Amino acid sequence: MKTLIESAAAAKAASAEIARLSAEEKNAALLAMADALEAQCAAVLAANRADMDRERAGGMSEDMLDRLMLDEKRVADMAVGLRQVAELPDPVGEVMREWTRPNGLRIKKVRVPMGVIGIIYEARPNVTVDAASLAFKAGSAILLRGSSSAYESNAALVGVMRSALESRGVTPDAVCLVEEKGHDVVDKLLTLRDYVDLIVPRGSARLINNAVEKATVPILQTGTGNCHVYIDQSADYGMAEAITINAKTQRTSVCNCAETLIMQEGWAEEHGEDLLRALAGKNVELHGDEAAAKYASGMIPATERDWADEYLRLAMAVKIVPDVKAAVEHINRYGTMHTECIVTESAESADYFLNNVDAAVVDWNASTRFTDGFEFGFGAELGISTQKLHARGPMGLEEICSYKYMVIGTGQVRP
Amino acid sequence: MKTLIESAAAAKAASAEIARLSAEEKNAALLAMADALEAQCAAVLAANRADMDRERAGGMSEDMLDRLMLDEKRVADMAVGLRQVAELPDPVGEVMREWTRPNGLRIKKVRVPMGVIGIIYEARPNVTVDAASLAFKAGSAILLRGSSSAYESNAALVGVMRSALESRGVTPDAVCLVEEKGHDVVDKLLTLRDYVDLIVPRGSARLINNAVEKATVPILQTGTGNCHVYIDQSADYGMAEAITINAKTQRTSVCNCAETLIMQEGWAEEHGEDLLRALAGKNVELHGDEAAAKYASGMIPATERDWADEYLRLAMAVKIVPDVKAAVEHINRYGTMHTECIVTESAESADYFLNNVDAAVVDWNASTRFTDGFEFGFGAELGISTQKLHARGPMGLEEICSYKYMVIGTGQVRP
Repeated sequence: MKTLIESAAAAKAASAEIARLSAEEKNAALLAMADALEAQCAAVLAANRADMDRERAGGMSEDMLDRLMLDEKRVADMAVGLRQVAELPDPVGEVMREWTRPNGLRIKKVRVPMGVIGIIYEARPNVTVDAASLAFKAGSAILLRGSSSAYESNAALVGVMRSALESRGVTPDAVCLVEEKGHDVVDKLLTLRDYVDLIVPRGSARLINNAVEKATVPILQTGTGNCHVYIDQSADYGMAEAITINAKTQRTSVCNCAETLIMQEGWAEEHGEDLLRALAGKNVELHGDEAAAKYASGMIPATERDWADEYLRLAMAVKIVPDVKAAVEHINRYGTMHTECIVTESAESADYFLNNVDAAVVDWNASTRFTDGFEFGFGAELGISTQKLHARGPMGLEEICSYKYMVIGTGQVRP
Repeated sequence: MKTLIESAAAAKAASAEIARLSAEEKNAALLAMADALEAQCAAVLAANRADMDRERAGGMSEDMLDRLMLDEKRVADMAVGLRQVAELPDPVGEVMREWTRPNGLRIKKVRVPMGVIGIIYEARPNVTVDAASLAFKAGSAILLRGSSSAYESNAALVGVMRSALESRGVTPDAVCLVEEKGHDVVDKLLTLRDYVDLIVPRGSARLINNAVEKATVPILQTGTGNCHVYIDQSADYGMAEAITINAKTQRTSVCNCAETLIMQEGWAEEHGEDLLRALAGKNVELHGDEAAAKYASGMIPATERDWADEYLRLAMAVKIVPDVKAAVEHINRYGTMHTECIVTESAESADYFLNNVDAAVVDWNASTRFTDGFEFGFGAELGISTQKLHARGPMGLEEICSYKYMVIGTGQVRP
């Protein structure tokens, strides 16, 4: 059993080695991991059963148990994910920009690996494989700290990936599990500046806030999504309904689903009743302000909390505003800088909305549900950033890299 | 006298307004600031004299007093700086990338302002004007927290800039000085996540480490520079001497000057004596390892501390290594990820060095002193980042911006 520092030091030592691997070497190792996962599926499932039995006995909710649970299908999906990451272009070494200065110095801005990426996450064991594969393809070592409830599952998955790396002649320490136990190990990890270049906290608001509070290592915050759909005066009814229903109901447990519907008052006068009936027909519980209440019966009065809440279930807050400006003000006040949508036929309203809403992604006549690495064409993602520094929105391979400048001279000195 | 929160709230409110300004509006305001600084130079100098008198009486060193001191030339230089920033291209609104998905969604990655940038800095009052002008041109509001020793000077400079903004019809809160006094105000600023999007600590290692420890707002670390010059086996003597002398002595108080000289043993055998004599001739105090000692008489034995020290004066550590690999190992162990230089005629050695040294800037046959916004062609810079997240090396206008994705559809929903 390694201590946290030993694991971090191993990852740091490995990072220099894997930074130098070619795309072919990395892809071969990813494919070997996929094959190994399939071959050793039974062992992984046995480890997962140990977690499941312990947590069920400990009183974990069915919902959480479902997140923790692995079966053949879920393990097969992880292998598919690994093969998809192998297909993605290698981000490392790309010359992002190149120019020559008047004194003859040639400057190249080159994408390089981050180094060691730490990830702190909760129950789902598939994150273990997703995150490890992305970090590895991006040339970084990963230090994985999952929840203790999934420890056996994660250890088994990491064991399989490490063996596969070794089989390809790659240091297994490219993928390191935090083995040290104890409540303070997360807090210690958050301050390991000498070993870790970046930490991505993924999970509950509590987990993320703890990372924000205590980290001295730079973090990429994958925050909550209190996303809005704003229906502007000129919106087409059919499009507005389709987008609102999709954004709210297509999947309710994800950060890019919508939580608040904002309608321009003139539009609401004409279509509000229909739209709210359509939502209610999908079993969406509506929490409205006074102006919205007249378009649906039995609406729960919205409180201040409703405007800020990320329901993550079939519930939606409803607000009426006089114009796009008021909608933007509301969104910038209560939103979480994730994804915000306007439905409108007016280019002017759209322009105002897209430019003035402060969010990672702003949609015009498209569902909020498209904020996703695959939907953007990035392939798998390490999460969706809601901070403004470094990476915003879906974080694919390029977003988890750094860069360096290479300056090539012929003996130049500074006058 | 505003409280910190009041100042931060004012900056936040202003940020939405100045994010929308055109390049022409921003440039006109910057030129107005330059004119106002020249016109009100006497008032600025009077304020500076108050700081100087108080600090001289308080026992501030001559060296520090010189940093604090303003005269007509220094104020004129600030005006020149403002006009240079007005000349730079506007980074805001640039479409960095644009593509269309198979479902017809058009995705644009657009550069946007950061929002509110906080800066925590030490004595030099010119930083007040430099930082404010860069943040403003990048469409962000700035919250300035200088040292208390420069308070009157900074307040005068900020007052002049705010009046100039108002004269151009721009909210003066684009440039806010932290007026609240007290020792804990920096620590409070470091946690104002609701108001501040980014904090740049500039100054001593103590100031920066305090920010790293306590910040919950994302920071961009402008760290110390323990930069190395490595002379490889095949290096041309003349070039090696010119670069080493320039990197060490052209200016010793800056983060991109060299602190350690590493020579390949074969090269040192042939040229070490000459190079060390040349350095001694420039009054450079040499601290060498045992192997280096034989090439210069009276060398101070280097201790572990010398390898890590940022001397910032005419002193240099000297180390002998067997090859480029050992040089890279030493640099990655003791360097601060700032700027590292190899002098060599071997493309193979250069390639190994450039790819394996982990630093913001790696130089081949060029002085470390070129790591600078102007030398890179970025114009003025807010500092030189030594972290790997977001921005590395000189931080010009683009580096202090964020981006957002604009997704433009025709009613697409996610299947």
